[in-house]
Amino acid sequence: ADDKLYHICIAAISVSTQVFFHARGKATLHWCLTLCFLSSPVNFLDHTQHKGLAVAVYGVLFCKLFSLNTSPNPLPFIKDGKTREYWMILSLFYYPTLYYPLLACGTLHNQVGYVLGSLLSWTHFGVLVWQKVDCSKTPEIYKFYSLFTSLPQIACLAFLSFQYPLLLFKGLKGTLMPEIMIKSISNASKPGVVERITDAVKSYIYTPEDVFKFPLKLAISLVVAFIAIYQMAVLLICRVVPTLHIVRKGVDEDIAFLLAGFNIILSEDRQEVVRIVVYYMWCVEVCYISAMTLSCLVNLAMLMRSMVLHRSNMKALYRGDIYNVYNRQRIIRPSRPALVCWMGYTSYQAAVICLSMIIQTLVFFICLLFAVFLVIIPILYGQNLILFRILRNMPFWLMLILAGIVQHLAARFLFITKDAGTRDLKNRGSLFLLTYMLFPVNVLIGVLVGMWRMIISALFNIVHLGRMDISLLNRNVEAFDPCYRCYAHYLKIEVSQSHPVMKAFCGMLLQCSGQDGDSGQRVRDAEEGIQLVQQEKKQNKLSSTKRARGHWQLLYTLVNNPSLVGSRKHFQRQSSESFLNGTLNCATNEGSNKESSPSKKVESASCN
Amino acid sequence: ADDKLYHICIAAISVSTQVFFHARGKATLHWCLTLCFLSSPVNFLDHTQHKGLAVAVYGVLFCKLFSLNTSPNPLPFIKDGKTREYWMILSLFYYPTLYYPLLACGTLHNQVGYVLGSLLSWTHFGVLVWQKVDCSKTPEIYKFYSLFTSLPQIACLAFLSFQYPLLLFKGLKGTLMPEIMIKSISNASKPGVVERITDAVKSYIYTPEDVFKFPLKLAISLVVAFIAIYQMAVLLICRVVPTLHIVRKGVDEDIAFLLAGFNIILSEDRQEVVRIVVYYMWCVEVCYISAMTLSCLVNLAMLMRSMVLHRSNMKALYRGDIYNVYNRQRIIRPSRPALVCWMGYTSYQAAVICLSMIIQTLVFFICLLFAVFLVIIPILYGQNLILFRILRNMPFWLMLILAGIVQHLAARFLFITKDAGTRDLKNRGSLFLLTYMLFPVNVLIGVLVGMWRMIISALFNIVHLGRMDISLLNRNVEAFDPCYRCYAHYLKIEVSQSHPVMKAFCGMLLQCSGQDGDSGQRVRDAEEGIQLVQQEKKQNKLSSTKRARGHWQLLYTLVNNPSLVGSRKHFQRQSSESFLNGTLNCATNEGSNKESSPSKKVESASCN
Repeated sequence: ADDKLYHICIAAISVSTQVFFHARGKATLHWCLTLCFLSSPVNFLDHTQHKGLAVAVYGVLFCKLFSLNTSPNPLPFIKDGKTREYWMILSLFYYPTLYYPLLACGTLHNQVGYVLGSLLSWTHFGVLVWQKVDCSKTPEIYKFYSLFTSLPQIACLAFLSFQYPLLLFKGLKGTLMPEIMIKSISNASKPGVVERITDAVKSYIYTPEDVFKFPLKLAISLVVAFIAIYQMAVLLICRVVPTLHIVRKGVDEDIAFLLAGFNIILSEDRQEVVRIVVYYMWCVEVCYISAMTLSCLVNLAMLMRSMVLHRSNMKALYRGDIYNVYNRQRIIRPSRPALVCWMGYTSYQAAVICLSMIIQTLVFFICLLFAVFLVIIPILYGQNLILFRILRNMPFWLMLILAGIVQHLAARFLFITKDAGTRDLKNRGSLFLLTYMLFPVNVLIGVLVGMWRMIISALFNIVHLGRMDISLLNRNVEAFDPCYRCYAHYLKIEVSQSHPVMKAFCGMLLQCSGQDGDSGQRVRDAEEGIQLVQQEKKQNKLSSTKRARGHWQLLYTLVNNPSLVGSRKHFQRQSSESFLNGTLNCATNEGSNKESSPSKKVESASCN
Repeated sequence: ADDKLYHICIAAISVSTQVFFHARGKATLHWCLTLCFLSSPVNFLDHTQHKGLAVAVYGVLFCKLFSLNTSPNPLPFIKDGKTREYWMILSLFYYPTLYYPLLACGTLHNQVGYVLGSLLSWTHFGVLVWQKVDCSKTPEIYKFYSLFTSLPQIACLAFLSFQYPLLLFKGLKGTLMPEIMIKSISNASKPGVVERITDAVKSYIYTPEDVFKFPLKLAISLVVAFIAIYQMAVLLICRVVPTLHIVRKGVDEDIAFLLAGFNIILSEDRQEVVRIVVYYMWCVEVCYISAMTLSCLVNLAMLMRSMVLHRSNMKALYRGDIYNVYNRQRIIRPSRPALVCWMGYTSYQAAVICLSMIIQTLVFFICLLFAVFLVIIPILYGQNLILFRILRNMPFWLMLILAGIVQHLAARFLFITKDAGTRDLKNRGSLFLLTYMLFPVNVLIGVLVGMWRMIISALFNIVHLGRMDISLLNRNVEAFDPCYRCYAHYLKIEVSQSHPVMKAFCGMLLQCSGQDGDSGQRVRDAEEGIQLVQQEKKQNKLSSTKRARGHWQLLYTLVNNPSLVGSRKHFQRQSSESFLNGTLNCATNEGSNKESSPSKKVESASCN
């Protein structure tokens, strides 16, 4: 399959498809953007769209982008090496345009779109599979690297080739479902140690809930991140392991002379030296593959944890629980930086995952090398116990441990008195004396504590480097972490545009005006939105209809006027005045809420 | 001055002093502790004690501990090299005992104690100065190192020698003053950029306030930390710089042959090679000294910032503002881990500062070396511009910048609509299209963002490594940072034992029972405590006596029953229920507070 011919044909088809879309495009849309990209903008990232199509197309695009790194000619038309840089830049825009029709065909919601989509996806899929079968081996990096790296691309295209015909025959099934929250996570009782460990493990496992569906943009991010992990793993393996294999095979008796030149004599027998060197190189290889696998597993666990945390964040923000998510008061509404972050979120997530894989593999590799060559091999062979020499200094370590135990026991039994449910200090004189006497020993313990602090903070940051949803910095400056800042802004846009109550409300409005053809779906949405609020009412055991109507009104007011949420009493940070005048403040807030409630301003929230 | 003779004499004096104290000790105190340390426990870390004495003695002890690192024989009696380890451990307990009488003499509050203290401090001071004058040069590390390292010790002993006679002649002046908070920091208005920068700079400068006095334990920690910075700076300079000097002086023409062996030919002329090598070594030396100075300045700034933050934390906790300080609900009362952390705080602070100085000097040194040899020297001499080659790839960087600008402009002008004070998205189709088209470019921007994240988090952690009062971890796991955990626990004990209202209340109780000789002081405390509450009342412009009395009662109840604070409405975390049923919850809480208030349980808080 000639790459050049294929690309010329497929580009022509793509352009013609886009011209077709363009002809259908409305004149009110931005002409400049439309002309630039020769394509009509469609709402393919909307919540009403089919989730799988967008995810698959993004996946294909990311795979293509990743393979650009290693390919000698980024665009298939050109073979000129000097201007490669410019063609590389062009290719960054060429490939999105090439795959765009695959995405756009799904948004038409009619037979023509599905037929076009089927044809295009079959073509892409067929040509790619043909190419890989025809010449599965490439000279770059590793003979099967090209095959491995295109597997996710083939999978995504296969999904598209299967999904478009399915849509064509079945018609568009309902995919819109508002996200509903039922359970409010309020676990007041203090859990035990075992429960806490179980909870911690559970919090890393994402179990789907019927009442919550992931936003499309996040689903795309997750799939792209997953593909990024796969691609990086393949790249890291293919770059290093074959080279190590070759080097290991090439070890012969000359290595003994080489090592002797550096005054390293492993053994008198040269065959023995070769055997030892080969064994050591095998250890290095095992360490590297283990580090890479560990890094993959860590990133997968982190991705899973991200999903769990993201769902709880979204639910909390739907509830209006802004302070707990952001740790400060924020206004949930679209803004310029928020929108830019929203646009870049998927890309940043993929890039950060790739970077974190490299760093993690490197760090874990070094740690494993240390562990193997300074701990495991010395123990197995009983020689070069360098690391264990510091442990020989037994009296010193014993003293440190003893000092720690003495302090804990003294604190428990000598200095704290429990009296009628409260605790206080006693024997202050002895406490002060013990503090003074143990000051020098505590300095030595402090050195260990400081080292532990360094290790734990470095390890935490390295492990969590790929996660956008937590900040690596201290809580007061967490917005300086660019990735967390991006996530925080992204969440703002996502929540402000997809609140389930708002969606139900929009559905009801549209139903009232009777302008919509797909009214059955809308009615269902509205019913679910109403159920959502009714479920909450049932939970709260409030049967009074008057109170319920009041809540409805308050809810609508707050959803549509998010700036009012900040002035509610739950979000007021306590100060010295409120500490003394709690009653007064509370009364004032209650009054102001009552005042704002009647003047509720229900906006015709955009929901095209 | 023979070290051995001096130590035997001074140890005998110390022991006899301690036996004297022991004879005065009460039988009810813990005999085991007393016997172990041959000394009577006295309340030398209490708030009623003279702050300078304790600080100076801790300073002397820390200097002695630091000099143990380098001295060949830790105890002056012993010259045996084999059992050095055991003598080292013994010395960790010998020196606190040796200097203990200096501390204990001040707590007697009478003429005998001051006379003894004066004599002891003069002896210590005289012998130390005599030793340093007699043989100021030592063979270890650097000839003047021993002199430099004992300067803080001399200063502390001089302070003691001056302070004890002063106390003897003047009598104990009033040093007890309860900490009072006047201003509540509640800056509601959003500050501008310039104001924010000014505030940020101001927040690093500690300006003393009359109404707040540092707790004794913290004052000791700060002085010890300051001495630690000085000692580490002297050690880092003396270990490295003299060696570099010697190496630089020893460079001769042989270096040209040596470099040629590694295929490095700096110049044809050998004199020229020597000149270049000497110049480069001078650069390395300058880098090292700069890095060390930078590290000192960073640590001093951090120490200053710690003081500011500590004051605001203490004030916030006095106000009951627990959630803002700890970011979660905690009960402020003594507990076993809290007490252990309180005991170790000063030592840990000193150890962590030392560790952070080493790490910072190392990292800054490497960064400066990179900057000098890859940026400054290449620019100055116009060669080896390795780092600037990546900037040559101009079209690529231009494209990234352009893509960023396009996204910001589009977000600002195309996609956000402002309508009657609220903001919403418009042109969703174009937004989605732009997001899709810029996906590959954003991945490349994401790599830069990820690198920036790595750099900023690493730099933040390295710079703040020496600060105990902030966590280096994410806000959800900040308690896993051992140093921050120690600080948080320490703060609990400090606040629970030194609340100004509690101190005033204790003063009033003691005054009522008329048992105290120093009643003038107590009365003054009580008056200040009352003023504190009255000032708050004035601020709040509440003239109603009934309400004021209610506040008094509430305040006392809460201070003496800290566990009730958690059930107040300010600390209730909002949940889904409270979002809907805010009115109900608020009413319930108000009711429960009212109920708990009459049953206030005023404990006879211990204040011996």
